[in-house]
Amino acid sequence: MGYGTVGSGVVEVISANSFKKKAGEGLCVKAILDIRDFADSPFSNLFTKDFNVILNDCEIDIVVETIGGISPAFEFTKSALESKKSVVTSNKELVAAKGAELIKTARENGVSYLFEASVGGGIPIIRPLNNCLAANEIYEITGILNGTTNYILTQMAKSGQSFKEALAAAQEKGYAEQDPSDDIEGVDTCRKIAILSALSYGKQLESDKIPTKGITNITLKDILLAKKAGYAIKLIGKSKKTKDGVYAFVSPLLLPEEHPLAGVEDVFNAIVVQASATGDVMFYGKGAGKMPTASAVVADCIDIIKHNNSGGPTWEDGGVLTVVNPDDVKYFIHIQHHKNEDIKNLVDKLFKGAKWVEKNDDDIAFITDKANEKDILNGINELKKGLGDSAALTSIRVEG
Amino acid sequence: MGYGTVGSGVVEVISANSFKKKAGEGLCVKAILDIRDFADSPFSNLFTKDFNVILNDCEIDIVVETIGGISPAFEFTKSALESKKSVVTSNKELVAAKGAELIKTARENGVSYLFEASVGGGIPIIRPLNNCLAANEIYEITGILNGTTNYILTQMAKSGQSFKEALAAAQEKGYAEQDPSDDIEGVDTCRKIAILSALSYGKQLESDKIPTKGITNITLKDILLAKKAGYAIKLIGKSKKTKDGVYAFVSPLLLPEEHPLAGVEDVFNAIVVQASATGDVMFYGKGAGKMPTASAVVADCIDIIKHNNSGGPTWEDGGVLTVVNPDDVKYFIHIQHHKNEDIKNLVDKLFKGAKWVEKNDDDIAFITDKANEKDILNGINELKKGLGDSAALTSIRVEG
Repeated sequence: MGYGTVGSGVVEVISANSFKKKAGEGLCVKAILDIRDFADSPFSNLFTKDFNVILNDCEIDIVVETIGGISPAFEFTKSALESKKSVVTSNKELVAAKGAELIKTARENGVSYLFEASVGGGIPIIRPLNNCLAANEIYEITGILNGTTNYILTQMAKSGQSFKEALAAAQEKGYAEQDPSDDIEGVDTCRKIAILSALSYGKQLESDKIPTKGITNITLKDILLAKKAGYAIKLIGKSKKTKDGVYAFVSPLLLPEEHPLAGVEDVFNAIVVQASATGDVMFYGKGAGKMPTASAVVADCIDIIKHNNSGGPTWEDGGVLTVVNPDDVKYFIHIQHHKNEDIKNLVDKLFKGAKWVEKNDDDIAFITDKANEKDILNGINELKKGLGDSAALTSIRVEG
Repeated sequence: MGYGTVGSGVVEVISANSFKKKAGEGLCVKAILDIRDFADSPFSNLFTKDFNVILNDCEIDIVVETIGGISPAFEFTKSALESKKSVVTSNKELVAAKGAELIKTARENGVSYLFEASVGGGIPIIRPLNNCLAANEIYEITGILNGTTNYILTQMAKSGQSFKEALAAAQEKGYAEQDPSDDIEGVDTCRKIAILSALSYGKQLESDKIPTKGITNITLKDILLAKKAGYAIKLIGKSKKTKDGVYAFVSPLLLPEEHPLAGVEDVFNAIVVQASATGDVMFYGKGAGKMPTASAVVADCIDIIKHNNSGGPTWEDGGVLTVVNPDDVKYFIHIQHHKNEDIKNLVDKLFKGAKWVEKNDDDIAFITDKANEKDILNGINELKKGLGDSAALTSIRVEG
C-alpha cells in the first residue's frame, strides 16, 4: 500500500532475481494499492485503487504499508490485521502514535505488526533491541536519527555554509524534501526516539510530550565556536530511564569530540544503546534512502514467513511513560551583536563557574557549570534582559 | 555445560529477579555440567559430572554449551541435538569448525543451534546478519573482532608502551589470558571471520585456509610511523566475496584515520558489513566479558522459547568456499638498523612510486604503490637480501 519511494523499492527488491534465489521463496507481490496511475510500470497489472481488493484477497498474507501519515494508513492497517494479515511498515508517524494499539490487534489476531524500517532505515535496530538485547535491561538510548539534519550540520561544519545554504544543498541532493519542516524541526527524530523508548522500556511514550527542538536556529558561528571548545553540534534524540519515569528530548546537543556520535557525518545515522549486561552498543549506517529502507521492509516480510508470527517487537497498550525533567545539565551560550559593555560581568554574576569559549567585541560564548535546567533557563532570561534588543542569543545543551 | 566465566554468567542472568520478571518466564536452570566441584555455589544442588543426566532429562529443552574447544563440546552438542534439545553456544572454535554439520543436525531434529555469543560478545551481529539483512546480498565484512589485541594496540599507540608492556598490562587487567597466543596470533579473530563469512555467503569456510597473522611483530615504532602517515594499526579480520570465491585474511592493517574502524579503541570490537541495498552498516560494542557474552547466550535461549525453533542462522553443509588471492594491495614497510647506504636507492628501484614516511639513519619507512601482492612480497625478499643481517623489517598491509 503506497507506491512511493519506499513502496516501489520494496517491489523492486522482491522482484529481483538474485533475491528470489536467496530468500524469496514463496514471497511475491500480488497487488499494489495507490491512488495514482502507473500505466508505464512493468507491474501495471498489479495496481488497484480499492483497499478492499487487498483486504478480501485470501491469498495475501502480508500487507506492506508505506503510505505514511496516520490516516488512512491506520484504518487500513487495523482492518488488515483484523483480517489476519500481517502488516509490515516503514511509517514511523503511525508506529509512534498507534504502535501499542496495532501490536495488540496483531497479537489478538495471531499475526504480526513489524516496523524495522521505521527507525534507522537499513540499520538493524528494532530487532536487535527486541531480541538480541532481550536479556538486558535498557537504561538509555542516544541517537542521531535523522540523516537530513545530520547532513546539514556536517555541511555547515565542514564547508562553512550557512544553515540556509546547507539546507539548499541537501534539497538539491534529494536529502531534504521541499517542505523540510518535519526533519529540521526535529519532529521526525521525535517519532523515532518515541518508538525506540517504547520498545526498550515496554510502554507507549506520547511523542507530543517529548520536548522537541530542531536545528533552524543553529548558526555557522555556533558550530565554529563549539568546535573551538572541543565539541560537535548534532541533533540528538535521547531517552533515559529514571526511577520516576522517562527523561526524553530531541535537541541540538554539543557532543565532546571523543563521543562516539560526534564523528557521525553526512546522512549517516547512529544509535548508542546503554544496556545492563552488554554495556554500550552502537549501530551505525545510512538511516534513510529507498533501497536501505525497502530492504528492511522485505527483511520483516521474510521474518514473518520464517517464524509464523510468533515473535515481533512489543510494548504494552494502556499506560504511558511519564516524561520527567532531566538531571543537572550544562549549556553552551553564544551572544552576538551585544552592545552592553558590562555583559561579561553580568555573565560572571549569573553563571558562576562558566567557562569562556570566546570573549571579543563580536561574540561572547561560554559553557555553564552543571546546574538545574530551570535555574539555567532563568539565568538566560535574566541575561536577555541585560542585553540590548539587537543582541542574538543561542543556547544549546551540552552532553555530559 | 561448562561453568566457567561465561557459563556462570548465564546462570547469574537467568536467576536474576529483574530478568525473571522481564523475559524469563518458563526459563530456569535445571542442571549444570562441569567436571570441577563447586560445593560453595548457591546452585550446588544443580551440578552434575555426567552428561547423560542432561541428555536423559526430558524436561531439559535447551542446552547451553560454554565448555569451549572441539572435544567433548562437539560430541555433547551433537548428542543433545539428536535428542531434540536445542543448543546455544558461545564456542567460536566449534562453530567455526563444525557449524554447518551442527546446524544440519539441528534442522533434521526440528531444533535450533544458535551462537550469537560466538562473535562480538554482547554485540548483536549474528541475528542482524541473518535476519535484518536477509533482503541484502552481503559483499564484504571487515572487523575488529578481538578485544585483547585491540587493547594492546591502543595501549601502544596512546601510552607509548612496547608490545610486551602492553600485553602485561592486558594480562593484569584480565583482558588477556596467561597463554595469550590464540588472541595475539590472530587465531580467535580467524574463527570469528570464518563464522561471519559462512553466515553471509552461505557456505562453510575452512578457517585453517584463511591466511592469519597476529600482532606479535608490531613494534611501537611501526605504530608511531603509521600514525605520522595518517594511519592507525588494527588487527583486522576481513572477507570479501569475489566472482571466484572468497578473499579472506586476518592481519594487522594500516587504516586511514577517517576509516570508521580506526577510532575503535581499547577492548571494543566493531564490525562493518557492506550490503547490497543497505550500504555500509557498523555494529560496535564490547566484544567480550562475562556479562555481555552471557546475556547474548540468554537472548538466544529466549529466542528459542519464543520462536519454537523455526528460524536460526544457517549455511550449507558440504562444499566449502574457496579462499582466493586479494586484488592489488599496498604495503607499509619499515626498516630499522639498516647499515646499507644505498638502501634508499634500492627501495626506489624495487618499489616504484613508493611514498616516504621516514628516511633517517635509524628508520626508513614507506608505503608502496598498489600492486599485485606477490610482486610486493618478492620485492620485500629482494629488499631483505640487500639489507645487512642485523636489519629489522616489518611489512604491514594498508587498507584502501
